[in-house]
Amino acid sequence: MNKINIGLVGIGRIGKIHLQNLVYHIPEAEVLAVAELLPEGQAFARNLGIPQITTDYQDLLDHPEINTIVICSPSDTHAEYVIRASEAGKAIFCEKPLELTIPKVQEILSVVDRNETPLMVAFNRRFDSNFQRIRERVVSGDIGDTQMLKITSRDPGPPPLSYIALSGGIFMDQAIHDFDMARFIVGSEVKEVYTRATICYSPEISQYDDYDVAVSMLTFDNGTYAVIDNSRKTTYGYDQRLEIFGSKGMALIDNVKPDTHKYYSEAAVAEPFPLHFFLERYMDSYRVEMKAFIQALQEGQPMPVSGEDGLKSMAIGLAAGISACENRPVKISEVLG
Amino acid sequence: MNKINIGLVGIGRIGKIHLQNLVYHIPEAEVLAVAELLPEGQAFARNLGIPQITTDYQDLLDHPEINTIVICSPSDTHAEYVIRASEAGKAIFCEKPLELTIPKVQEILSVVDRNETPLMVAFNRRFDSNFQRIRERVVSGDIGDTQMLKITSRDPGPPPLSYIALSGGIFMDQAIHDFDMARFIVGSEVKEVYTRATICYSPEISQYDDYDVAVSMLTFDNGTYAVIDNSRKTTYGYDQRLEIFGSKGMALIDNVKPDTHKYYSEAAVAEPFPLHFFLERYMDSYRVEMKAFIQALQEGQPMPVSGEDGLKSMAIGLAAGISACENRPVKISEVLG
Amino acid sequence: MNKINIGLVGIGRIGKIHLQNLVYHIPEAEVLAVAELLPEGQAFARNLGIPQITTDYQDLLDHPEINTIVICSPSDTHAEYVIRASEAGKAIFCEKPLELTIPKVQEILSVVDRNETPLMVAFNRRFDSNFQRIRERVVSGDIGDTQMLKITSRDPGPPPLSYIALSGGIFMDQAIHDFDMARFIVGSEVKEVYTRATICYSPEISQYDDYDVAVSMLTFDNGTYAVIDNSRKTTYGYDQRLEIFGSKGMALIDNVKPDTHKYYSEAAVAEPFPLHFFLERYMDSYRVEMKAFIQALQEGQPMPVSGEDGLKSMAIGLAAGISACENRPVKISEVLG
Amino acid sequence: MNKINIGLVGIGRIGKIHLQNLVYHIPEAEVLAVAELLPEGQAFARNLGIPQITTDYQDLLDHPEINTIVICSPSDTHAEYVIRASEAGKAIFCEKPLELTIPKVQEILSVVDRNETPLMVAFNRRFDSNFQRIRERVVSGDIGDTQMLKITSRDPGPPPLSYIALSGGIFMDQAIHDFDMARFIVGSEVKEVYTRATICYSPEISQYDDYDVAVSMLTFDNGTYAVIDNSRKTTYGYDQRLEIFGSKGMALIDNVKPDTHKYYSEAAVAEPFPLHFFLERYMDSYRVEMKAFIQALQEGQPMPVSGEDGLKSMAIGLAAGISACENRPVKISEVLG
Repeated sequence: MNKINIGLVGIGRIGKIHLQNLVYHIPEAEVLAVAELLPEGQAFARNLGIPQITTDYQDLLDHPEINTIVICSPSDTHAEYVIRASEAGKAIFCEKPLELTIPKVQEILSVVDRNETPLMVAFNRRFDSNFQRIRERVVSGDIGDTQMLKITSRDPGPPPLSYIALSGGIFMDQAIHDFDMARFIVGSEVKEVYTRATICYSPEISQYDDYDVAVSMLTFDNGTYAVIDNSRKTTYGYDQRLEIFGSKGMALIDNVKPDTHKYYSEAAVAEPFPLHFFLERYMDSYRVEMKAFIQALQEGQPMPVSGEDGLKSMAIGLAAGISACENRPVKISEVLG
Repeated sequence: MNKINIGLVGIGRIGKIHLQNLVYHIPEAEVLAVAELLPEGQAFARNLGIPQITTDYQDLLDHPEINTIVICSPSDTHAEYVIRASEAGKAIFCEKPLELTIPKVQEILSVVDRNETPLMVAFNRRFDSNFQRIRERVVSGDIGDTQMLKITSRDPGPPPLSYIALSGGIFMDQAIHDFDMARFIVGSEVKEVYTRATICYSPEISQYDDYDVAVSMLTFDNGTYAVIDNSRKTTYGYDQRLEIFGSKGMALIDNVKPDTHKYYSEAAVAEPFPLHFFLERYMDSYRVEMKAFIQALQEGQPMPVSGEDGLKSMAIGLAAGISACENRPVKISEVLG
Repeated sequence: MNKINIGLVGIGRIGKIHLQNLVYHIPEAEVLAVAELLPEGQAFARNLGIPQITTDYQDLLDHPEINTIVICSPSDTHAEYVIRASEAGKAIFCEKPLELTIPKVQEILSVVDRNETPLMVAFNRRFDSNFQRIRERVVSGDIGDTQMLKITSRDPGPPPLSYIALSGGIFMDQAIHDFDMARFIVGSEVKEVYTRATICYSPEISQYDDYDVAVSMLTFDNGTYAVIDNSRKTTYGYDQRLEIFGSKGMALIDNVKPDTHKYYSEAAVAEPFPLHFFLERYMDSYRVEMKAFIQALQEGQPMPVSGEDGLKSMAIGLAAGISACENRPVKISEVLG
Repeated sequence: MNKINIGLVGIGRIGKIHLQNLVYHIPEAEVLAVAELLPEGQAFARNLGIPQITTDYQDLLDHPEINTIVICSPSDTHAEYVIRASEAGKAIFCEKPLELTIPKVQEILSVVDRNETPLMVAFNRRFDSNFQRIRERVVSGDIGDTQMLKITSRDPGPPPLSYIALSGGIFMDQAIHDFDMARFIVGSEVKEVYTRATICYSPEISQYDDYDVAVSMLTFDNGTYAVIDNSRKTTYGYDQRLEIFGSKGMALIDNVKPDTHKYYSEAAVAEPFPLHFFLERYMDSYRVEMKAFIQALQEGQPMPVSGEDGLKSMAIGLAAGISACENRPVKISEVLG
C-alpha cells in the first residue's frame, strides 16, 4: 500500500489522540474523512483540517480513496465496523476489545481472514518505550531462558459503576492489557491460568460478578510462570511495573515519574508520584503504535498486533474469570474450544 | 528469669555466629558451656573464653546454673535435643527446622507445651531491619487493610546435591523462610496454597522430587493474597525483595547493597550487586534475633517466634509441595489435620 | 494583544522546533509568514502549511497583520533583527544570545526599552519540568533561605572547532545556560564570580583562549553560594543535575533517562544512560517556553525571560572568563560598568 | 612487630569504640592497659576484661610489654602524648587533630621522624566502604584522569557553643575530614584554596570568627578541581556524598540509609532519612581503620594515614580560613611556609 488514506470513526477521548497523532506526527498517512455523531468531536476534526466530516460510517467505506479504517467508536460497534470494513476491502486499526465473547471474535477473525484484511488490534502498551526495552532484552538473549514474569498493574481509582457494568469485568477490561503484555514479553502462549480475586473497595460491583483486586498466575507453553496482580485502586497513583527473570539475567521497569526531583525535608525524603493514569503514562505509546501500524501497511509487513493477539489475550481473561469463580487452574484450551 | 546462663550445642557456621553475638554483644547473657564434637569448633569457643567445653550434650542439661539451651547442631538432632532440654526444664532457642514432618513437630510442641518451656524457633529474617520496617508499616496502619504481598527470594546458586538430598526440598529448606516471612508481615494465617514449580538448572535434583524454580500463591484468612517466587540460582547474586500493598498504601524493600556507589562509564551506568548471600545479607539479624530471645526470657514475655510459628510455616511448605505435584490449590487444613 | 500573528525568521534546527510547536501545539498563535534563505527550510515551512514564505526578513516586518517576530536566525543577525523588529513595533522572541558584548546588548535593550517592546530571550531550560519543580520548591518556601546551589552541566562531546571559534567560549556558549538557571532558581542576582578552568580534551581550542572543563563559584546578593561545574565531554552522555540546599530542606534533580529499566546480569546491575543531548533532554521545554511567551503576550504580562535576563546571565559569563584568566574573584559590577 | 600489645589512653566516646573493636574484632592485638581518669570509663574497660587500668598515662609508656599506644584523650593532650610515646619508642595511633597550629604539628612530626615512630592519624572515613570503592575506581583507572571532585558534607545539627569555642572552627573541625578525603580520593596534593563562608544558623559563633556554611574550591597539583560544601545543620540528617569525574567515567556515592524501604501513600513516595550522624554512618570504618593500623604494624608497612596526612589536610583547613576571611585564593605554600 503506497499511500495510506484514512477514514477514522469515533472522535472521543482515544479518537482525538489517534487523530492528532495522524495529522501532526505521521506524514506518511492522510486522514481524508472522519465519522462522528457529536458536534464537539466534529469541531475537533474540523480544526485539524480534516477535509470531510460525516455522521455516517458508510461514507468512509464508500470513499474511493480511503483504503484504511481506524475504529475508535464505542466497543459495541467494533464487531460490525470491522466486518463491514473488511468486506469493503479496507485495512483496519481497531481499538480493543474486538468483542467480548470468543465465538464473536472468531467470527470476526474468519471474515478478516477470508478477505486477507490487515487488522491491527490496539494493545498500545506494547509500544511503550519501557516495555519495548524489556522485550528487546528477552529477544536479544540478555535474559536467557525466561522463568518468571511479574506484572504489577494497579489503577489510581475505579471507573464509575456505569462503566463497570459494560466493561466485561476486571479481567476483560483492565487485566487484559497485562495478559497481552505477558504474551508479548515472554513470546510464548499461555496454557493455563489460576486466579484469585476479591472485592476490597467497591461492594456495589458484586452485582456484576466483578472484582477489584485480583492475582493471576499464568503458565506458558515454554515453561515460564507469570504473576500478574491487579487492583482498581491505589492511594498513590497508577502503578505499572514489570519484571522478567531468566537463566542469564533479570530486567525490570519501575513506574514513570513526571520529573526526577527528590525533596529532603524535616518530614521526609520524598519523590514524585507516578504519572497519574494511562493517558499520561502511555501517551507516547499511542503515537508509536499508530506509526507502527502505518509502517507495516506501507511495507506489506504483518500487523504488529494481530486479531489473533486480541483473541488469545481475551481467552486468558475469560479463563481468569472462571478460575477466580471456581478456585481451580483453568486451561486456555477449555475456553478457546 | 533474671540471669540468662546459656549452654550452646553445635559450633558450626551458625553456631559460631550465635556464640560470638552472645559473648560480644549481649552482656545480659553468659555462655557457661558449649558442647561440640570437633576440635576446630572447640578451639573457637575456647578463644572466646567459654569456661566449659564438652563433647556431651547431656553436660549442658546437667549443669546446675545453665537455664537456657541454644541448639545449633545438625537438623536431625533438633527434635531429640529440644525434647531433652524441655524435660530438663531449660528455655530453648532452636535453629530451624524443628523437624521435617508434621507429627514429629506436633510431638515436640506437646512436650514443650506440657513443660511450659519457652521455645524460640530461629526465623532470623524477621529481625532484619528492612523486614522490620515493613512489619511496622503494617502494624501502624500505614498500609491499611493488606491486600497483596509479594516476596522475591532467589539464591545466588544451588547448594550441593548432597545438601539437597537431606534438605526436605526447596519448599522446606528455602521457601519456608518466605512462608514464615509472609505470615509475619501479614499477621494472619495462610489457609490455602497454590504452587507451580519446575527444574530449570539442576536436572539431577529430580531424583529427590525437588525443584529449583517455584512460584506460590497464598491465600490468608484475612483475605490477603501473597505471591512468593523462588529460585535456587541467579546470575546477579542474592535477590531478597518484598512488597506489601493495601488500602492505605504500599511499602517495599529493595536488595541491600555493600555500598551506594554508582559508576558511569562508556559501557554502562552501573551499581553494585546485592550482598552475596544470606550470611552477608542477614548477619545483623542474627544478633538482633538473639537479643530478642534473651530479652523476652528476662522479661517473661512470649517468645518472639514460637514453636507454633515453626509448625505453621512448615505446613505451608508441605502444602506447596503437594500443590506443585498435583497442580491444584491445597488447603493448609489438609496438611495440618 | 488578542491574536498573536507570527513571522518567524530562520528555519534551521531550532527554528524547525519552534515552527512545529507553534503550528501543532499552540492554536492561540498563527504563523503567517517565514523568512528563510535555504530551500530545505522553505520546504519544511511549506509542508506545515505556512501561507507566506520569503527570503527577506523585511517582508515579515512589513506584513500588516504580523505583530510578533520569532528570531531563530544565526546569532550574528540577532542584534540587527531585534532592533529592526522593535522599531517596527513588533513583539519579539529571540534565541540566545542577543549579542556577545555588553555594550551591544545594552544598546539593544535601550531600543527595546524606548519602544516598550515585549522581548523574550530564549533560555528554554527554565521551562523544563524538572527545573520548574525545583523553582517551585524555592518559591513555595520548601527550601527556606537558600544557602547553596549546585549545578552539574556536562556535554556528551565537544562541538566542532569551527563552532568553538565563533561560540564566545565555554562561558558564553555552554555555561551561560547554567548561569541563567542559577539566577532563575535562586531568584537573586549574582554579585561575584570565581572560576577555575582548563583544557582537558581539546588542546586545539587554546588558540581561542577557550577551555573545556570549568568550575565556577557564584556569590549571590542574598548570600547564596552557587557552584557550577562544566565539561565539554563525558563518556556517559549528557549530564544535567541540580541541587538546592537551604534552611528548610534540600531538593535535587537527577538526569532524565529514556526509560526506567534496570538490567541485572552476571556483568553488572545497569540502568540506561541519560538522554543523549540537549535536543532529547530539553525537547519539551521548547514547547512550554513558546506557550509561555504567547500566553504572556496575550495577557499583557511581563515576559517570562527578559532582555535583562539575557544581559545579566551574559555578564556572569564574561566575569567567569576574566576570573579564569586572572585567578581572582571578579565582581559583576566590574563587567556591567 | 610480631605481637601488638596496646596501651590505650582516653575512654570517652571514641575511645570506647576503639577499645571494643580491639577486644572483639582484632585478635591480632591485645590491650594490656588503659589510662583513664573517670570511673565510668574505667568500668567500661574493666567489663571488657582489660588487665590493667590506671589513671596515669606514664604507666602505659613504662609497661615493658606495651609496644603500641592508642591516643583517644582530649585534643589538647595529643601533642604531648604523641611526643612522649615516640620518645618511649612506641608505635602510635592518634585521634585527629595532632595539634591546631602548623609549627606545633611540624615539631611533633620532627620528633616522630627522628625516632622513626610509626604514627597513624585517625582519618577514619578513608576506611568507609563507600569511599574505598570510589578510591578503587580512581586507582584502577576507571575514572581516567580526574578532573572534578565534589564532596557534600553537612551535619544534622551544630555542636554546642562550648565545643565550637575549642574546635578550631568549621575548617579545622568539620571540613578537615573532607579536605583529607579529597586528598585521599584524588591522590595528589592541593596547591590552592578558595573559600566562601558565612553564618546562617548560629549568630553567636561569630565571636569565635567561625562559620556554619562554607564552600571551598581546591586546585590540585595534578590539575583536578575539587568543590567541598559544608554546613553545620540540615533538616534531614547527615549528608555525606561524593562524586569524582574524569576522562573515562564518573563515580558517585549517595548517603547511606538504615534500610531500603520505600513507602507509597496518599501523602508521598518516601524513603528513609540518611543514617543520623557520624557514629552511625562511620561506625564500621573505625573497625576497618584499626585493623589497617594493626596490620600495617605487623607487616612493617607504611602507616595507612601518616602524620604528613594530618599536616597537609590541616594546612588546607588553615588556608580555607584565610581565604574565607580575605576573599582571595590562598596557596597552600603560603600556610606551610
